Amino acid sequence: MPLTPEQTAEIEAARANPRPTLRAVSEGMEAHLYRAHPVLDHGFIRVIDYMGDDSAIVQAARVSYGAGTKHVQNDEGLIRYLMRHWHSTPFEMCEVKLHVKLPVFVARQWIRHRTANVNEYSARYSILDREFYIPEPAQLAAQSTVNNQGRGEVLTGEESARVLAMLKSDAAQMYDHYEAMLSQDGQQGLARELARMNLPMNIYTQWYWKTDLHNLMHFLRLRADPHAQYEIRVYAEAIADCVRDWVPLAFAAFEDYRMGGVTLSAKAIAVLKRRLAGETVTQEASGMSKGEWREFVEVWG
Amino acid sequence: MPLTPEQTAEIEAARANPRPTLRAVSEGMEAHLYRAHPVLDHGFIRVIDYMGDDSAIVQAARVSYGAGTKHVQNDEGLIRYLMRHWHSTPFEMCEVKLHVKLPVFVARQWIRHRTANVNEYSARYSILDREFYIPEPAQLAAQSTVNNQGRGEVLTGEESARVLAMLKSDAAQMYDHYEAMLSQDGQQGLARELARMNLPMNIYTQWYWKTDLHNLMHFLRLRADPHAQYEIRVYAEAIADCVRDWVPLAFAAFEDYRMGGVTLSAKAIAVLKRRLAGETVTQEASGMSKGEWREFVEVWG
Amino acid sequence: MPLTPEQTAEIEAARANPRPTLRAVSEGMEAHLYRAHPVLDHGFIRVIDYMGDDSAIVQAARVSYGAGTKHVQNDEGLIRYLMRHWHSTPFEMCEVKLHVKLPVFVARQWIRHRTANVNEYSARYSILDREFYIPEPAQLAAQSTVNNQGRGEVLTGEESARVLAMLKSDAAQMYDHYEAMLSQDGQQGLARELARMNLPMNIYTQWYWKTDLHNLMHFLRLRADPHAQYEIRVYAEAIADCVRDWVPLAFAAFEDYRMGGVTLSAKAIAVLKRRLAGETVTQEASGMSKGEWREFVEVWG
Amino acid sequence: MPLTPEQTAEIEAARANPRPTLRAVSEGMEAHLYRAHPVLDHGFIRVIDYMGDDSAIVQAARVSYGAGTKHVQNDEGLIRYLMRHWHSTPFEMCEVKLHVKLPVFVARQWIRHRTANVNEYSARYSILDREFYIPEPAQLAAQSTVNNQGRGEVLTGEESARVLAMLKSDAAQMYDHYEAMLSQDGQQGLARELARMNLPMNIYTQWYWKTDLHNLMHFLRLRADPHAQYEIRVYAEAIADCVRDWVPLAFAAFEDYRMGGVTLSAKAIAVLKRRLAGETVTQEASGMSKGEWREFVEVWG
Repeated sequence: MPLTPEQTAEIEAARANPRPTLRAVSEGMEAHLYRAHPVLDHGFIRVIDYMGDDSAIVQAARVSYGAGTKHVQNDEGLIRYLMRHWHSTPFEMCEVKLHVKLPVFVARQWIRHRTANVNEYSARYSILDREFYIPEPAQLAAQSTVNNQGRGEVLTGEESARVLAMLKSDAAQMYDHYEAMLSQDGQQGLARELARMNLPMNIYTQWYWKTDLHNLMHFLRLRADPHAQYEIRVYAEAIADCVRDWVPLAFAAFEDYRMGGVTLSAKAIAVLKRRLAGETVTQEASGMSKGEWREFVEVWG
Repeated sequence: MPLTPEQTAEIEAARANPRPTLRAVSEGMEAHLYRAHPVLDHGFIRVIDYMGDDSAIVQAARVSYGAGTKHVQNDEGLIRYLMRHWHSTPFEMCEVKLHVKLPVFVARQWIRHRTANVNEYSARYSILDREFYIPEPAQLAAQSTVNNQGRGEVLTGEESARVLAMLKSDAAQMYDHYEAMLSQDGQQGLARELARMNLPMNIYTQWYWKTDLHNLMHFLRLRADPHAQYEIRVYAEAIADCVRDWVPLAFAAFEDYRMGGVTLSAKAIAVLKRRLAGETVTQEASGMSKGEWREFVEVWG
Repeated sequence: MPLTPEQTAEIEAARANPRPTLRAVSEGMEAHLYRAHPVLDHGFIRVIDYMGDDSAIVQAARVSYGAGTKHVQNDEGLIRYLMRHWHSTPFEMCEVKLHVKLPVFVARQWIRHRTANVNEYSARYSILDREFYIPEPAQLAAQSTVNNQGRGEVLTGEESARVLAMLKSDAAQMYDHYEAMLSQDGQQGLARELARMNLPMNIYTQWYWKTDLHNLMHFLRLRADPHAQYEIRVYAEAIADCVRDWVPLAFAAFEDYRMGGVTLSAKAIAVLKRRLAGETVTQEASGMSKGEWREFVEVWG
Repeated sequence: MPLTPEQTAEIEAARANPRPTLRAVSEGMEAHLYRAHPVLDHGFIRVIDYMGDDSAIVQAARVSYGAGTKHVQNDEGLIRYLMRHWHSTPFEMCEVKLHVKLPVFVARQWIRHRTANVNEYSARYSILDREFYIPEPAQLAAQSTVNNQGRGEVLTGEESARVLAMLKSDAAQMYDHYEAMLSQDGQQGLARELARMNLPMNIYTQWYWKTDLHNLMHFLRLRADPHAQYEIRVYAEAIADCVRDWVPLAFAAFEDYRMGGVTLSAKAIAVLKRRLAGETVTQEASGMSKGEWREFVEVWG
């Protein structure tokens, strides 16, 4: 349960006072504002602010293309056209700001997306809370035997129990020592900027993260992908649920062209054309490497 | 007069329908929304959307510094502290979207600020209007004799009249030829993407330009500076007037620390300390070059 | 002919003095260094500096993936894997710096690629040369009748001659007036920062442009595309010829996966699968719009 | 001692084969190439590649300012001018690529500098080494009593010993557990992407980090500053030593204007002017807050 009663009260208070604005308003996103969507055991994502809606994308495109966009009958058609042709700038006209609570090892992956604004809770200034990510047993999986960066079978029985016990007791002990080092009770107390280094990477941190819709969709494409690590994927999925309500037309286009789409190489196009013409093509005749062929067959059989 | 009656009506319509929102609202900025602030002879800036206010800056900083910010008594003190110590990320939490109409030669300077999102009217798709920047006589200045990139004395008499006449007749002629090349009346008509190259750089273009407050202040520091070219400075000043109403505390800190501040080199610090100790320091004894010394004396006498 | 004898001599001098270095060296790129590749009537691109080669990409990837990359037999396989899976950071480890001379209207399109470093010749400080882009008759095309941003048939006979004459005489006249306004012969002389606004956008400018290989390939994908405007496409093609010699493995992967590849939407995948299963699918049954279907049929018949 | 004999041999091999190049060469930087500069107990920085030198900065500036730069007598004067007037683009024309080995908590601070290219060793793919940062006793300091983010007195006697013992034994235990969870000896073995979360943040990671000189100097200004945390400052200082040898003119200007410089607010300028006129100004009369005044007095007495 990620929220204290105080936090819940704070959120309800923030939601109690609508004010008039002349800006574009997304009803779907207003319903999410400030609310915490739980992720993992102690994490959450919260929408703190947003700018723009589907119309803002259309409006920006019409500034660019002027009379040239008149022939597109409607907003949906224009948004799909923009997505299909990789016109990214109109999608950059929408912006969102999230409050995210997440384990440090997830944060380290997330921060690699550079085109965003971030304010992270600083453990140089302040003391972190005693909250660690401990996976559900169903998530405790073995190393994949086919993929260097993936997971395979779920751990069973004794091994699962031993791993869980280790994660729990280590987290508890490290936090005890963190407090013991910081304590000024009868001693000087180690500086916070030093004591923090003893904490394991499943401790939770939090940040404000702000980005535009184009870059957010790029993040979602990579992190809501089935190959992404489960612990970041659940954050991406929670965000995707908000984006769907915020800009439904753009999100539908994104799902069709990006999340549900594939990119074919020139070689793959050639193979598909030969198949469409009735030919049977083998890996050897495809010009593809074994790995490439395996990925190709996963999609096309 | 930059707006047609249709545009004015459109703006009034956009301002007629306030809607409730749970987001942060800046009253000062709401008053500007959609309205056109005239700049130069045919240009304007309009605020189309914004995200955040002074409180958003404070809120982001408190996420970062946690309990560490409790000792700062108030928002103003915290904002001034952040500005003084070059903490840029909290200011990145505010975002603004402008609609700007501006001459192409100004746009070429403006676009050098890369950390922004832009949708420009495309002359590949659409036909530009017959609108050119023709300076006021008071702005028709000679090349500076001391500064390779500045202006000197205002042109007088006959020369001023001749220059003005040239600018006007050339603009008219080039636009006539643009239309003549595009015309499909009894001929094929040159492609728009080609015809546009005959237009001079004082023709007006327009764009949507979106950036965060930190990068906007960087833009203002460079472009509202007295050394900036007049034709971009007036845009920066019009924007600054909106920012003052949007985030009054941040803007006041910006004026004190950035617009009104100076940076001293180690050499300049040493000279000032010697002066404070009662010594008279010459350029030769300062270790500064002549140019550096001249700039130093401009500030410190 | 874009180069003066002085410039040619300067280039030969720069190429005359190899110096020893311990850095990665690309023989293919050394052959291009400083040399001018002519583009359009007065333009060129020149490679001024570069960092890294195919091995640098591999090296960076092996830092990331450690022992995980051991199973990939060779550099080519790894580079193709990285490209196929959109791993962009290893390609960012190579950097190139170009000197480009190009018409202003091309520069305006080019500069929209923000992830690059640019130093452009400043017409505030200096006086531009009398050089304008005048298209070959074969490039003087009419507006496309099917595409708002494209060209159609080449202009013929009298219309072509009239357009060419207009472009030439306008350029000459505008430059004459530019000089007349600047002249300090018996008058004050208009400031350079003002006089430049009377110049048409087919005048040549020049800049140093530096970017990394990942962003360069993104630029090439958009600008060497058949839908890009001819006048920027020829620059992209000239750059592509240098990149091919610089990082041959990365460029081959880029050609296969990006330039020669296509992206399919979820709808398009479904249609292709039905076709592979022997079904005939119509636009109506495809779920695609007419425009989308037309683009689909262009590739797949 | 951060390097194994194998690594040392590898570095010497890389340095054994100079090859001819036509590019700009910095003798000072060639001497650093590949060599490891030790930082902290197991870390290092190594220069892997670089592009440009002091002349490249000058060359880029002269492209921009054309004849306008002719009056500057020499390269040093021009570089100082560019630095003084915040012309950042010429400094962006130089690029450097470093190999850095550093504790995770330092990496987390470092990565906040977004304008850089990074390839980090991935603990999803590969297994981290048993190497942890354990501070020297002289670095084990108490929390500052005046600064929420700083250190105060060095810990003494028993407390110091207890903290050190805790850090060492915790690191050892966590790594033992990391190995125990990964082990496939008679069990499935936990996936690497999960096991890594049990590691404390003083474990070492490594990355390739590439950035341009302008952004590097911004990094150095913040991280080589006395207020930066010691553990990142020593990296900044090691890098600064390389930059000094790479671009000596630019680095000297940087030291004078940035590292050794200060920024004065409008209020501070006013106070200094009153002092220069012989007046005694108190905090109350200065218009500054207490914190601001304290910082002012630190510099000016």
